[in-house]
Amino acid sequence: MQNETAVKKPHVVIVGAGFGGIRTARALAKNDVKITLIDKYNYHLFQPLLYQVATAGLSVDDIAYPVRAIFRDQKNVDFRLAEVSNVDFETKVVTMNTGQISYDYLVVAAGGMTNYFGMASMEKNGFGMKTLDESVEIRNHVLRMFELAAHEKDADKRRALLTFVIVGGGPTGVESAGALSELIYHVMVKEYHNMNFKEVRIMLVEASDKLLATMPEELRDITVETLIRKHVEVRMCVQVTEYDGERMSLKGGEVIPTYTVIWAAGVKANNLIDTLDVEQASMRRAIVNEYLQLPTRPEVFIIGDAAHCMQGERPLPMVAPVAMQQADATAKNIRNIIRGKELKKFVYKEMGNMATIGRNAAVVHMGKFKTHGFIAWAIWSFVHILRLIDFRNRAVVFVKWMWDYLVYERVVRIITRQ
Amino acid sequence: MQNETAVKKPHVVIVGAGFGGIRTARALAKNDVKITLIDKYNYHLFQPLLYQVATAGLSVDDIAYPVRAIFRDQKNVDFRLAEVSNVDFETKVVTMNTGQISYDYLVVAAGGMTNYFGMASMEKNGFGMKTLDESVEIRNHVLRMFELAAHEKDADKRRALLTFVIVGGGPTGVESAGALSELIYHVMVKEYHNMNFKEVRIMLVEASDKLLATMPEELRDITVETLIRKHVEVRMCVQVTEYDGERMSLKGGEVIPTYTVIWAAGVKANNLIDTLDVEQASMRRAIVNEYLQLPTRPEVFIIGDAAHCMQGERPLPMVAPVAMQQADATAKNIRNIIRGKELKKFVYKEMGNMATIGRNAAVVHMGKFKTHGFIAWAIWSFVHILRLIDFRNRAVVFVKWMWDYLVYERVVRIITRQ
Repeated sequence: MQNETAVKKPHVVIVGAGFGGIRTARALAKNDVKITLIDKYNYHLFQPLLYQVATAGLSVDDIAYPVRAIFRDQKNVDFRLAEVSNVDFETKVVTMNTGQISYDYLVVAAGGMTNYFGMASMEKNGFGMKTLDESVEIRNHVLRMFELAAHEKDADKRRALLTFVIVGGGPTGVESAGALSELIYHVMVKEYHNMNFKEVRIMLVEASDKLLATMPEELRDITVETLIRKHVEVRMCVQVTEYDGERMSLKGGEVIPTYTVIWAAGVKANNLIDTLDVEQASMRRAIVNEYLQLPTRPEVFIIGDAAHCMQGERPLPMVAPVAMQQADATAKNIRNIIRGKELKKFVYKEMGNMATIGRNAAVVHMGKFKTHGFIAWAIWSFVHILRLIDFRNRAVVFVKWMWDYLVYERVVRIITRQ
Repeated sequence: MQNETAVKKPHVVIVGAGFGGIRTARALAKNDVKITLIDKYNYHLFQPLLYQVATAGLSVDDIAYPVRAIFRDQKNVDFRLAEVSNVDFETKVVTMNTGQISYDYLVVAAGGMTNYFGMASMEKNGFGMKTLDESVEIRNHVLRMFELAAHEKDADKRRALLTFVIVGGGPTGVESAGALSELIYHVMVKEYHNMNFKEVRIMLVEASDKLLATMPEELRDITVETLIRKHVEVRMCVQVTEYDGERMSLKGGEVIPTYTVIWAAGVKANNLIDTLDVEQASMRRAIVNEYLQLPTRPEVFIIGDAAHCMQGERPLPMVAPVAMQQADATAKNIRNIIRGKELKKFVYKEMGNMATIGRNAAVVHMGKFKTHGFIAWAIWSFVHILRLIDFRNRAVVFVKWMWDYLVYERVVRIITRQ
């Protein structure tokens, strides 16, 4: 009997090494299954801190960790560096750019990507911030704008070089604006001896009348006040209509000359979902049942940003905690199927909301608990360091943060690959 | 009088922010001069540790430090991110890709670049290791070779993917070979669960009959033994004749299938020197007089890898200590000219030689003092950390090294921009 199961070990294929995929693999690795984890990058990316790479606060290596290092001691986990192009649910075969692989159970945790809502000029000329390469591009670009502005004689050109626009008032937009402000007004200001920093302009543009829409009103107000104190121009109820790389147009006719527009206004499921034979809902996410399975394929689970999962009247948001809880539930249900047990419905436990706006400034909302300022910043830091350590198991990020905190330093300001 | 000198502050233009350029600017910044430092990168690169980036031991940000951060408190130092294309010695004007600038004193510290000695196939298909981007390319490439080999069914192809050749038995070649061995046999071996590491081959190829030619024989022998113990195949008296990207040909007819050839076999002066109206010697370096001036232009100094400076019967080697001592001498002589004092001849003080071959293994030679093994490694680490701190003023590299030392870890193994 022992031998027979050894031969027939179920093969679980997981697509995506983000929060959902890694966590599913970890949870299942202890079981008697064979796992293949596929990702087009060889690292797990800690996406919530991408904005810190974009604003020169952290290095690339601080928020990216090799997948193979995570599963060093799990000999039943195999990694494939590959891009998945399709899945044949009938024959249970995943097609990658480097070959094919068959599965007994499939977990699609392919994640999300920037949603430009069809605005082609923004997709072409703006910056997205969902991948490591994109955040490095933003960093290089912002630093280069300062180098160009430092010796630009034409005042209009100089002001356009020094105008930085962030579109989207969600956590990514708010955190990016706060971090950019600190980079510029605490660090750059000391190093560009001949520059007039009154010419610098940081704008945060939001289409609705709310920043951090899911937060209570009190914390939303504090967020706006904090940003304004950090010299961020907060513009609400404003819609961007076009951006040609030099001029951003707003609905109503206003035109803002700028070379830098960071688009943090939307996410949609990875384009892999479009190639699959699945029913889709908003943000092109695949519709799953209450067990996170494809309704017609009980051996296929879809989780995280790729899944449209209803909870009550609403679909769950596209955030890391959802993906991680879904990963745990999926690992449990795959075990249940293998053992012939009944499946358990997925129920999301709301963990609260938080966003940081810079040094000593954040807003935190958990159930009835609301706080802001230094305490919120400490909670935010603590939670993120814990999560990072979960993947990295080391202290460099902590050392860097403490250092930055003590000396207002940003050492990651190098421009690579010009 | 005070006012007059303020108006007529001498303008010193320094081309290059390497060891020589940075040091000259630092030494002169205390004086009543205006300094413009020009580099095509916005960072100072700690080149002696490039091989650690190439072998995933350190991050890009650990060995690159923003120039502006170095001169934060020196308000008389201005930085220009630009590439110098020419200098008109007659009108004393430097032409950059972004404009022109005139000087009273010019210091050319443009550094060196990889010398392929005219071997076009190697320049095209091999990897140089003089810039940050090149070392990141090597890292990405080496990591990708392992990912490809992990699922390659063809045994010949697999062995070629796992064959890594380093050409050149100087310090860079020796250090790269040692570091690559440690990456593979201490780290990768734990993470590629299904790979046979007997198929891996690291080769160090040297045309002469000596590794680390300037070291005493005793230390050269120890170097070879140490490398062999680290599974590096040391091939001396062997000349590479061609490399097409898949097959490396040696003189005599031997052909080695490999996708990775790292060229560490030569350096020559930066190509800027070719565009200047100067007399050149070996490695296209500009010939300078005993004060490091261009013989016909007393206001132009050339230092470091760009200068051909005779000391006794031989030209000085192209290494960092030479550039740094020449920087001190140049700063002093520019001061002397300004103050109407006599110039001082440059005399190089030999500081000794060292190279590390990996964890606990290095060779050190200073005057009559010779040592190897752990003590040499400790000296090497101490000297390099001190030099780094000189530029970075912080402890992250130290923390990383200690961590690697304790747990045999390499966390920088991410493949960027595929």
